[in-house]
Amino acid sequence: MTEPYPNGSGAEIADLGFARLDLQRAARTGDPEVVFGRGKTPAQVVAALHTLHEAHPDGAVLATRLDGDAAALVRAELPDADVDEVARTAVLGKPRAPRGRVAVVGAGTADMPVVRECVTTVRVFGSDPDTILDVGVAGLHRLLAQRDRIDEADAIVAVAGMEAALPSVIGGLTGAPLIAVPTSVGYGWHLDGLTAWLATLNSCAPGVLTVNVDNGFGAGVAAARIARRAR
Amino acid sequence: MTEPYPNGSGAEIADLGFARLDLQRAARTGDPEVVFGRGKTPAQVVAALHTLHEAHPDGAVLATRLDGDAAALVRAELPDADVDEVARTAVLGKPRAPRGRVAVVGAGTADMPVVRECVTTVRVFGSDPDTILDVGVAGLHRLLAQRDRIDEADAIVAVAGMEAALPSVIGGLTGAPLIAVPTSVGYGWHLDGLTAWLATLNSCAPGVLTVNVDNGFGAGVAAARIARRAR
Amino acid sequence: MTEPYPNGSGAEIADLGFARLDLQRAARTGDPEVVFGRGKTPAQVVAALHTLHEAHPDGAVLATRLDGDAAALVRAELPDADVDEVARTAVLGKPRAPRGRVAVVGAGTADMPVVRECVTTVRVFGSDPDTILDVGVAGLHRLLAQRDRIDEADAIVAVAGMEAALPSVIGGLTGAPLIAVPTSVGYGWHLDGLTAWLATLNSCAPGVLTVNVDNGFGAGVAAARIARRAR
Amino acid sequence: MTEPYPNGSGAEIADLGFARLDLQRAARTGDPEVVFGRGKTPAQVVAALHTLHEAHPDGAVLATRLDGDAAALVRAELPDADVDEVARTAVLGKPRAPRGRVAVVGAGTADMPVVRECVTTVRVFGSDPDTILDVGVAGLHRLLAQRDRIDEADAIVAVAGMEAALPSVIGGLTGAPLIAVPTSVGYGWHLDGLTAWLATLNSCAPGVLTVNVDNGFGAGVAAARIARRAR
Amino acid sequence: MTEPYPNGSGAEIADLGFARLDLQRAARTGDPEVVFGRGKTPAQVVAALHTLHEAHPDGAVLATRLDGDAAALVRAELPDADVDEVARTAVLGKPRAPRGRVAVVGAGTADMPVVRECVTTVRVFGSDPDTILDVGVAGLHRLLAQRDRIDEADAIVAVAGMEAALPSVIGGLTGAPLIAVPTSVGYGWHLDGLTAWLATLNSCAPGVLTVNVDNGFGAGVAAARIARRAR
Amino acid sequence: MTEPYPNGSGAEIADLGFARLDLQRAARTGDPEVVFGRGKTPAQVVAALHTLHEAHPDGAVLATRLDGDAAALVRAELPDADVDEVARTAVLGKPRAPRGRVAVVGAGTADMPVVRECVTTVRVFGSDPDTILDVGVAGLHRLLAQRDRIDEADAIVAVAGMEAALPSVIGGLTGAPLIAVPTSVGYGWHLDGLTAWLATLNSCAPGVLTVNVDNGFGAGVAAARIARRAR
Amino acid sequence: MTEPYPNGSGAEIADLGFARLDLQRAARTGDPEVVFGRGKTPAQVVAALHTLHEAHPDGAVLATRLDGDAAALVRAELPDADVDEVARTAVLGKPRAPRGRVAVVGAGTADMPVVRECVTTVRVFGSDPDTILDVGVAGLHRLLAQRDRIDEADAIVAVAGMEAALPSVIGGLTGAPLIAVPTSVGYGWHLDGLTAWLATLNSCAPGVLTVNVDNGFGAGVAAARIARRAR
Amino acid sequence: MTEPYPNGSGAEIADLGFARLDLQRAARTGDPEVVFGRGKTPAQVVAALHTLHEAHPDGAVLATRLDGDAAALVRAELPDADVDEVARTAVLGKPRAPRGRVAVVGAGTADMPVVRECVTTVRVFGSDPDTILDVGVAGLHRLLAQRDRIDEADAIVAVAGMEAALPSVIGGLTGAPLIAVPTSVGYGWHLDGLTAWLATLNSCAPGVLTVNVDNGFGAGVAAARIARRAR
Repeated sequence: MTEPYPNGSGAEIADLGFARLDLQRAARTGDPEVVFGRGKTPAQVVAALHTLHEAHPDGAVLATRLDGDAAALVRAELPDADVDEVARTAVLGKPRAPRGRVAVVGAGTADMPVVRECVTTVRVFGSDPDTILDVGVAGLHRLLAQRDRIDEADAIVAVAGMEAALPSVIGGLTGAPLIAVPTSVGYGWHLDGLTAWLATLNSCAPGVLTVNVDNGFGAGVAAARIARRAR
Repeated sequence: MTEPYPNGSGAEIADLGFARLDLQRAARTGDPEVVFGRGKTPAQVVAALHTLHEAHPDGAVLATRLDGDAAALVRAELPDADVDEVARTAVLGKPRAPRGRVAVVGAGTADMPVVRECVTTVRVFGSDPDTILDVGVAGLHRLLAQRDRIDEADAIVAVAGMEAALPSVIGGLTGAPLIAVPTSVGYGWHLDGLTAWLATLNSCAPGVLTVNVDNGFGAGVAAARIARRAR
Repeated sequence: MTEPYPNGSGAEIADLGFARLDLQRAARTGDPEVVFGRGKTPAQVVAALHTLHEAHPDGAVLATRLDGDAAALVRAELPDADVDEVARTAVLGKPRAPRGRVAVVGAGTADMPVVRECVTTVRVFGSDPDTILDVGVAGLHRLLAQRDRIDEADAIVAVAGMEAALPSVIGGLTGAPLIAVPTSVGYGWHLDGLTAWLATLNSCAPGVLTVNVDNGFGAGVAAARIARRAR
Repeated sequence: MTEPYPNGSGAEIADLGFARLDLQRAARTGDPEVVFGRGKTPAQVVAALHTLHEAHPDGAVLATRLDGDAAALVRAELPDADVDEVARTAVLGKPRAPRGRVAVVGAGTADMPVVRECVTTVRVFGSDPDTILDVGVAGLHRLLAQRDRIDEADAIVAVAGMEAALPSVIGGLTGAPLIAVPTSVGYGWHLDGLTAWLATLNSCAPGVLTVNVDNGFGAGVAAARIARRAR
Repeated sequence: MTEPYPNGSGAEIADLGFARLDLQRAARTGDPEVVFGRGKTPAQVVAALHTLHEAHPDGAVLATRLDGDAAALVRAELPDADVDEVARTAVLGKPRAPRGRVAVVGAGTADMPVVRECVTTVRVFGSDPDTILDVGVAGLHRLLAQRDRIDEADAIVAVAGMEAALPSVIGGLTGAPLIAVPTSVGYGWHLDGLTAWLATLNSCAPGVLTVNVDNGFGAGVAAARIARRAR
Repeated sequence: MTEPYPNGSGAEIADLGFARLDLQRAARTGDPEVVFGRGKTPAQVVAALHTLHEAHPDGAVLATRLDGDAAALVRAELPDADVDEVARTAVLGKPRAPRGRVAVVGAGTADMPVVRECVTTVRVFGSDPDTILDVGVAGLHRLLAQRDRIDEADAIVAVAGMEAALPSVIGGLTGAPLIAVPTSVGYGWHLDGLTAWLATLNSCAPGVLTVNVDNGFGAGVAAARIARRAR
Repeated sequence: MTEPYPNGSGAEIADLGFARLDLQRAARTGDPEVVFGRGKTPAQVVAALHTLHEAHPDGAVLATRLDGDAAALVRAELPDADVDEVARTAVLGKPRAPRGRVAVVGAGTADMPVVRECVTTVRVFGSDPDTILDVGVAGLHRLLAQRDRIDEADAIVAVAGMEAALPSVIGGLTGAPLIAVPTSVGYGWHLDGLTAWLATLNSCAPGVLTVNVDNGFGAGVAAARIARRAR
Repeated sequence: MTEPYPNGSGAEIADLGFARLDLQRAARTGDPEVVFGRGKTPAQVVAALHTLHEAHPDGAVLATRLDGDAAALVRAELPDADVDEVARTAVLGKPRAPRGRVAVVGAGTADMPVVRECVTTVRVFGSDPDTILDVGVAGLHRLLAQRDRIDEADAIVAVAGMEAALPSVIGGLTGAPLIAVPTSVGYGWHLDGLTAWLATLNSCAPGVLTVNVDNGFGAGVAAARIARRAR
């Protein structure tokens, strides 16, 4: 069921039939294992979580983008897993002790699923998330009231849809590493998040980084990597 | 050289050979006459300005989007005209007394040509412009310092490129009619202003109106119409 | 449940768990409160309407973009609310006395939901709507027959899909502030309203303002703001 | 220099080295020969016109999309040719007697090059063009004053840029075959004519046909084919 | 229920509550009346067909884009109507005697609904359709075998999806007026017919006209207008 | 039921009512017959497979893009057919003996349906497929471990979604003909495979060929044609 | 100036300061070396050609996408080089003996630069090109007259702009491996070749492969690889 | 010339007439001041650099996107400035001592301007850049040979055009924070870098961050912020 790593580093691969899992990714990157739920059957999600957890019993394993059936089967078959239907995530095993802090800032209520996917990812990837909600730019006082918490973070994730002005405003207030997550939230025609995406890439605040639309997972991975290395 | 208006309202049309000018637009809409400079030769611009001014000697006539040659010929042939090379406009005749006030707010230095096209248009179309510059959202204190002037306006025009967050922030501060002008200003890839345009259309602040990219003229027309009717 | 407004203006925020409502928006902008229904559960819509109405008992509160379940629950739980399934709106409380008049002009039958969302919004935001229907440009006589009503308005909203020629034709007839609402109505391939949207932004009539596709709410907010300030 | 037509219809091909001209297209389609000037050197344009004219001495040959150098060389080398620098066309030989009438209607001054390319094409392809200019929809009375001329045509070509509302308005007035030519004329951001193009394809008037942006030639070919077959 | 036509031509409008029908369109354009089914309830479709047929008892009335429920109700309530579920059309009343012939050519089996919508439209609009199927360019002999029928038509409609090469090949064979209908048929990624649409607009055969994607109705209207005027 | 091939090559066409099958394609191209399942009813798929198999009893006939109902009916009505629900294909008859080898390389688990459609096509079109899975570029050792199998192929098909980097990496390792199949697999916003498609067209490895998104069939046809001609 | 190849295959890299040339690509892929001229100064092009030729004296080295200055300096500094200003290529050294034949078919005169870039690439990459010109689908007899030459090829490259129907027609005539090269040639609005590109990807003929717009080089590389392996 | 900072933090603004410089950004964000050269005259660039340097004499000031004239005037007027014409940058003053290390990895020669803009930005923003060039994925051994240097970095910037596969490959080798910079480098049609941009956003390696096309400056700002906080 395993095959030698071609350049001798000792990597092993678990062949589940429907996929071959790379059991040494953690050794190469220092990150936990992740199961991407989309396109997998509920049984495949459970099997992948189980196999990866057995290979890495001392840490946590994350599954993302679970549909309702997969979330239900994980609850039934893996009772120790922590399942979040809003974030569409499941976590099996205990994350290592967190290092550093990541502020995850959400502009509006509708951005909640992306915020929570990001928060869970930050935790599994070894840092401490601080969630700040409903601070959209059309009511500046709500954002300014949270400025101290933002200033204390080692990395910031700003989640925003519509015109996605939030990252620019935060970027003018702080010099911490800042990752924008555009979301597909809008009132009318917003091209499935293209508007927010273009906005984050054209921020007038220098140094704003971005990820794909609704990709709270990717932002969480990057933010945790930054925060857990911070002094 | 004139022909009867088909429904009997007395409209006349001046046939210049290269164009037929509608001399009764002012009667129908209450607005001054305008020469759109793009695609016209400098001599055609001068002829159109001259003809329209003779037909409406008591008010001002505006020309927009003048290239360098047209601006120079207007200066030479029509010494009474007020020519602005940055705004690429020329004004012939004296605007009527202004009614109401329009705040024209610009996010950055690079938005200046659009701001000035708008300011001149507001003046020619019968209102009083108040110009506020360099108040981008990456330095919120600069915008907040101008809040009183914004609150006093009967209509607001917010000119912004890049991610165009300015209209949303202003829209959260005031309830006056607000027109966003997206501009084709950006650092990198911004699709000739599409980014700013989409952002203004998806503003999280309700009631933000928009015009085409870089269209300071259109915004000025609309803002003046609003302001000069205001109590 | 409330927190102090950071710059001392006395704003309060109601924390409903799933959202934090900004109870002082009315004080800042002069506008009523609005609940955006999309992405909220029916129970959340009812809770938000109820809380905002209690905070502002003397005026009306508006909910938009309600799906069928939310509309039904509002009818059941808030019997005083005025629910419109076509417009997908609900109104709770009595709007203040209207000032000014807004002509809401619709090109075709299929534009009705957008027209009615706009009309309700105008009324809640404090102005008097006048609805004019089925005046598309392929039968000019129907539009010309309504010219007097259009001329009497303090602001005009022109709702049109397909090639959206209506705003340009109206813009040639009048000088009142004019807002175009492109709709996602079409016979074949129209890119979900992009065609109409681009058309309104490129109108040959000067000063046409626009909002997002199908955004009757945004147009209504802006038109009411303009009309209620008019002399 | 010629080769047999494979299915025995007697077609011949003239090999000029840089191109092989199809000398029997006229026999197959009933249309005159055309040289597409773009991408050809001035000498190649002259050679192609000359060769085709010799093969078809009794009719006219058309060249389109000539740049300035090509137009000049045609004037110098082929003094019998009729060269139009605005339309960027040249005609060599005498068109056959026209049959039917084509109304070519242009919305604005800036559409002139497309209008004239179309008018010349109609004439060379055997019909009689009637040119009607400056009848944009923002001044409806100018269009309505020309209604009789439009009604008399066997086919109508409506040339319009910006939001291209003209074809819809004409389509509501008449039942004659109607071809819209969107042009790349605009005030601001119009996507090189995409706006006008989309508008013509989504006309609310039934049966509007369209061609590519600025393609006065294609519209002229089709309109002449329609008109010369009309009773 | 009727109102005077403003310029005295005697037009009348039927107000059905949900729509105001223009009863004089036939007088202005010479075409029959049409009910556009999309967005109308089945009862509204039936009412509109009935009212228009009563106003024009001597001709046919057409309804297009009927969904299954509307088609069923028309069958039940209007037993004299001719309903075609593939074309999604219904016809009430007898079309006038046809004049001229229209060849409606379809590239593949999947284009059938568009072909039939076009064929029915041609018949209702007063011409005689000739249907030619399955003549895609990947098997040229099938098309060449039908050349005589194509040559005899007064107008040709070429319906094709995928890369839509058929109109170009037909355009090289004949000089009759030629209308291309791009369809949203494809194997993989074709952008909902954009590929076919762009192809028809860029045909290397001169004079190809086009309509919107899948718009067999629009092509039928135009083709019938051309054919019934032909000698 | 058959008609003569116009240029004398003896082709015959089977008219099934809903389609006319070209029974001589094999003679012209050397390829087997194929039924494209999309848009056909299950009964039409069965009839087409049956008719083509009877016309070509010595080889295999392929059906692609079968939905669940069509696959089930083929299983029931044509028990000799080999049906693959993942690939959505059915094969009736025995493929001729394979010539050459095609390596079909898939980046990830989610690309499986496209990989299997390609593998089946290669076999039916007369070559020998070698399937290599789960060798995405984020774990290079997995790809490098398969290098010998890749080097031995006469043609390579690289199937990849997301950023589709796999074809470039393979193209740097080998000089065999290489076809990339972009897939519509992605984590977030990927424009239905446009990202992968653009990536394959812009590969930094020279000579990478591409097909439409998810078009495993087209890649299989081309690869088999290449491999079965190879020395 | 050289460094060891990490996995022991003996590769060497030449460091020219502005670039590090991979001298072992030929060993890995069997292909000659290529200098991509765009973005390089004329002196850099000459240096790269010279260095690669010295490393591979027994074969040919190709440079593509040369601007006028680079072509001139290559002529002056490397008199043995074969420079083609139309194709914008230079060849230094003698290609190895050709194996197999590639038909390079061009639809129109304007496609010539792409055709010649492809032809030269085929020759340098070790196969024998056969050039067939001016066989666009609007005159089918010209293409059918060349059918024998097309049938004899081991691989076919079809170069076409506008609607790019040529590959589909050829694909219906032959079963040889077929590569389409869409070109940025058009009459009007064609989106810089997007139209032709989409058309080739949606060909109704199965197995058509494609490369980037105007990429005659890439098609030539792939076609030569296919042809030189053919029996 | 200065005005008080509204919330009492002591910020000052320098009014240069053409712009108002925010002299306290460094205090808020910990970053140096930057002059964005595009759209400014050479004299304006010199004045801005001079003013900012006088306000911050102990650190460095950066100017980006200088055209040739601006670079020349900076050289002449500010001889202490360090000007780089390839990167189009100028630095005035001495950067503070670097903390942490940033690997700036470039795929190809043509990406050099972006790489150097990034490297200079990293230095000015307080970290130590390590430049690694010409390691595109079509020659994997070149990248693998640099793996140790990549592993030692606190943050990685991967600069790549065309299909931009480099970030995915690096992301599979390391767990350090990774920023991708897509560039507008390509062989054929790449949509001005859209291809590379979409690719970086869809990387199969988790946690890849991205910035706008060609935005080496933004990536440098973010990477330096990350690296200088690292342990």
